[in-house]
Amino acid sequence: MLYIGVDIGGMSVKAGLVDENGSIIVKDTAVTRAQAPAEEIVADIAALVRKVADEGGVALSALGGIGVGSPGSVDDEAGVIRYSCNINFVRTPFVELLGGMLSVRNVKISNDANCAALGETVYGAGRGARNSVTVTLGTGVGTGIVVDGRLLTGNKSAGAEGGHVIIKAGGEKCGCGKRGCFEAYASATALMRQTARACERHPESGLAKLAKERGIDGRTAFMAAKAGDKVAKRVIGNYIRYVGTGLVGFANVFYPEVFIISGGISKEGDALILPLRRFVQKNAYGAEYNPPIDVVAASLGNDAGIIGAAALAMRG
Amino acid sequence: MLYIGVDIGGMSVKAGLVDENGSIIVKDTAVTRAQAPAEEIVADIAALVRKVADEGGVALSALGGIGVGSPGSVDDEAGVIRYSCNINFVRTPFVELLGGMLSVRNVKISNDANCAALGETVYGAGRGARNSVTVTLGTGVGTGIVVDGRLLTGNKSAGAEGGHVIIKAGGEKCGCGKRGCFEAYASATALMRQTARACERHPESGLAKLAKERGIDGRTAFMAAKAGDKVAKRVIGNYIRYVGTGLVGFANVFYPEVFIISGGISKEGDALILPLRRFVQKNAYGAEYNPPIDVVAASLGNDAGIIGAAALAMRG
Repeated sequence: MLYIGVDIGGMSVKAGLVDENGSIIVKDTAVTRAQAPAEEIVADIAALVRKVADEGGVALSALGGIGVGSPGSVDDEAGVIRYSCNINFVRTPFVELLGGMLSVRNVKISNDANCAALGETVYGAGRGARNSVTVTLGTGVGTGIVVDGRLLTGNKSAGAEGGHVIIKAGGEKCGCGKRGCFEAYASATALMRQTARACERHPESGLAKLAKERGIDGRTAFMAAKAGDKVAKRVIGNYIRYVGTGLVGFANVFYPEVFIISGGISKEGDALILPLRRFVQKNAYGAEYNPPIDVVAASLGNDAGIIGAAALAMRG
Repeated sequence: MLYIGVDIGGMSVKAGLVDENGSIIVKDTAVTRAQAPAEEIVADIAALVRKVADEGGVALSALGGIGVGSPGSVDDEAGVIRYSCNINFVRTPFVELLGGMLSVRNVKISNDANCAALGETVYGAGRGARNSVTVTLGTGVGTGIVVDGRLLTGNKSAGAEGGHVIIKAGGEKCGCGKRGCFEAYASATALMRQTARACERHPESGLAKLAKERGIDGRTAFMAAKAGDKVAKRVIGNYIRYVGTGLVGFANVFYPEVFIISGGISKEGDALILPLRRFVQKNAYGAEYNPPIDVVAASLGNDAGIIGAAALAMRG
């Protein structure tokens, strides 16, 4: 059976024809007319789905289903996009609209980060796991949680906001207005802040020199640490402890087979993943009696959204 | 259909015949010979199950199934009790043994705290909820998590140890050896420590006087606060913030319909529950857009284990 996975973004919509092995047979994109009326945006997506089915030589009626990942707040069960910061969806009954336009019955929708997590778990870095937590270390911190092969989304799909679990009560201010959130310590933005503070405190360090040359981003401290700078090594050591503390919290609740790390910071590869894996395996509750928890970097790249959306439809 | 729920304790085993409305038709108990060989303990339990079925006038072959809650580390899927601190179970294939002795096919087992959480969710304080987190505030902090009507236990049932989620990195030392665990702030033991510290700092307070009169337990600060003592009010206010911080973390991941508070501290009733509910409803991520999360006290008392174990068997 073949499925179509749709990954809606603020700039473009991507869609792919995906088989039951999670391989993309053909894919295509269309511009997102983000400020058009919602029905028109859905009609554009319907047209893209038709096109991809055509290109793959499969009739819509022969599809196993269509899965969709959308940014913003999505009520998976109702099939409704509640709102999306950058796209004109407000209480949009997406599943009903798209299903109606294409006469396809099995249409599923979830948040785009959830879809990517499902894709990585079923077909990517977590292949074979029944339980996983995907943590995206980017501008913020996103989490996608799979329990027994299914996305955990909470009542009305309001959950899986693991970036706002408090790991240090009374600690750093978070963008959400609270203090001590995981995101306030583990996002790329937080790492940049930690880097800037270290540079201020140690203007003589290799880290400070590098920061002066090329500005500060999520890679700066990793680069200086690789070059042997002690201050940078301390920044990275602390950052890994912060990320690890959040992962251990998730481990003690979910005890997944695997943590999948995605987002910009995950590109640091082993310099991030290996110490993080050691930290989790050492600190998870009951780790000495229980199966080890793996920590890996995401592997599907930009296709995770399409593949995960298709996987959503496969699960019925 | 009728089911038997078994609640194994270190001193006694309780078993009850339970109908599909979660009502106990008849129940009985037997002494736990905790240090006997495991097969003998299971044989004692088999005899108790037979007795309860007899008392209820139902043949074993007519039962829908048997559910069992055991203390310790249980692998639900394998039906094995890995170990239990107080009872002589070590890698005991409990489901196989009990099912064999009684010729009953549908036998299910889980940790006793998980069973109690399931009982409260399906038939007790959380009746009607599909997603719940039950938090037991006792000597330690236990959590039982229900997602979409099923217990969440993690890979090899090693999860749901929410007492060891870190809410204050680098904070109070926990019994597990780590620092900053939820349990180190929210258990009755932690509240007693917080109370003792306040008494030391404010020997003139009503709290200190009360503590001198009757010693310190989990009720002391609640009692003094009710009598109007400011120091005690501050202790309780901080304690509720600690408990609330943990609940908000769970809320942001699970977004359950309801938190169910059990254990000794839950007997404080509204003095605990009302401010905790306000804290969660104010601080959960996206609370202003999403359905409110309720916080309630457990309602099944000592029967939660029997009823929940039966519910486990009902779920197949």
